[in-house]
Amino acid sequence: MESMKALDKLGFPSNSKLLIIHADDAGLSHSENLATIETLQNGCVNSYSIMVPCPNFEEIADFAIDNGQFDYGIHLTLTCEWKNYKWPPVLSINEVPSLVEGNGYFHSSKENFRVCAIPKEVKNELRAQIDIALAYGLQPTHLDCHMYTLGLNLDFFKIYKELGIEYGLPVFLSKQIIESFNLKAEEYIKEIDFYVDEVFIGNYEVFKNGNLLDYYKGILNNIKEGLNILLLHPAIDDEEMRSICIDHPNFGAQWRQIDLDFISSEHCKELLKKNDIQLITWGDIKEKLYSSSI
Amino acid sequence: MESMKALDKLGFPSNSKLLIIHADDAGLSHSENLATIETLQNGCVNSYSIMVPCPNFEEIADFAIDNGQFDYGIHLTLTCEWKNYKWPPVLSINEVPSLVEGNGYFHSSKENFRVCAIPKEVKNELRAQIDIALAYGLQPTHLDCHMYTLGLNLDFFKIYKELGIEYGLPVFLSKQIIESFNLKAEEYIKEIDFYVDEVFIGNYEVFKNGNLLDYYKGILNNIKEGLNILLLHPAIDDEEMRSICIDHPNFGAQWRQIDLDFISSEHCKELLKKNDIQLITWGDIKEKLYSSSI
Repeated sequence: MESMKALDKLGFPSNSKLLIIHADDAGLSHSENLATIETLQNGCVNSYSIMVPCPNFEEIADFAIDNGQFDYGIHLTLTCEWKNYKWPPVLSINEVPSLVEGNGYFHSSKENFRVCAIPKEVKNELRAQIDIALAYGLQPTHLDCHMYTLGLNLDFFKIYKELGIEYGLPVFLSKQIIESFNLKAEEYIKEIDFYVDEVFIGNYEVFKNGNLLDYYKGILNNIKEGLNILLLHPAIDDEEMRSICIDHPNFGAQWRQIDLDFISSEHCKELLKKNDIQLITWGDIKEKLYSSSI
Repeated sequence: MESMKALDKLGFPSNSKLLIIHADDAGLSHSENLATIETLQNGCVNSYSIMVPCPNFEEIADFAIDNGQFDYGIHLTLTCEWKNYKWPPVLSINEVPSLVEGNGYFHSSKENFRVCAIPKEVKNELRAQIDIALAYGLQPTHLDCHMYTLGLNLDFFKIYKELGIEYGLPVFLSKQIIESFNLKAEEYIKEIDFYVDEVFIGNYEVFKNGNLLDYYKGILNNIKEGLNILLLHPAIDDEEMRSICIDHPNFGAQWRQIDLDFISSEHCKELLKKNDIQLITWGDIKEKLYSSSI
């Protein structure tokens, strides 16, 4: 029996090439915020997500509220991967002791998080992040997850889905990312779930070899039928961003500047047009999936 | 845009008349258990659900384990509607004080439950019910809800859906029942949810006027395309059942005997055949929706 994919669930013809162009990590820093805004206003990014526990959360939240035409979600955050730039949970560390390292900040690696985190504390912390966003006046269109830490085991992944139900928001589910963790996607994502068919995100090998730009162009030239998402991390390669990303070229400042340049370029717009790519936002998906069907 | 209904989600042609014939309330009493087993073995019932907190739970649970060919779910129970026949929560009343009346048993009416119950206690009690069933060795195919109490407000309904995710089970969702509570179905059930199109259940007016049998025949003769469910409560109109249902003719012993007789009759089998009705179980639905789609 033919399985129900995102296109069917959304009611699009089977030859539709749908794409969300998504900027992760808004709120991380001033540089990240400036670049994200630039890609929304003048580039091709059509959705972004906000990290509530990060230092520049309020800056991007103010922008989001003043610019409701742009689609944004909550980038659920449980890790803090930079060497000298750290943030703690929004709950006190007494409430979520399993989520922090000895310094009181979030775990710096997915592996530490996976080994230490207690599901109940994960759920409490993430609820608190969403509640802070809502109390601030944000009206998010979706939930996604920084470093996809919620995909590291089934207990976390259930929390991810449950938060979607609790807050009435679509959740970014990807079989591909689950498989990249050497886990069995079919145990995580079922037919009843709504998931993205294909996720595109740069990798360190490609970046190191100087091929990131060509990689992005190739994506747009070869995109397939289905629901696709391109994950970018636009930022300006400036002093602030270089200090944050010190000793961490993977998704570092230079990489993020390439993201910003490419997605803001005229060439990118031409490629979207030439390849009949249809942009869609999480807000569109929310409207379709979380509205009444009668 | 045409909305996605159950038939599409299950991959059936749009002219399919699917029907689940479901016996509620297994475990309620010995009479209920005997009749449920009879309708499964010799009648047309093809799915049933079990009340964990009720006196005769273990009797039906033993049958369920020994007869895995029959489809069964957990009939999540939060009320206790009979005058002299009562059961308490599975958790201690200190843990779920909002779920009980002064006598320590569940609330006797939907309204009392709705007004008093604290969602957190509802979730804890229902998890405990499911965990007891699983620990006993049951392998349920679905979750449904006694008197549909979880449909009485949005907080309860979210718990209902979240339990489905947590335990990987389809949940019986019905817009019709929500509407019968004068609530807005579109706030409860969204496009992303899997729900039953049409629910058939007797009502007191029909029973009182002696028309229950004709009502059941009419259902089978007029069933429409889509996913339908017929909810029955088979029991034997014996001393035990009459004492349980005393002063409560609505879904009482006499009514339940009619359910048993009709659904076990040759005439019922003929009507199913004559009307090209395709029987489907919650297990079939679980297999389709909770298996991998790759």
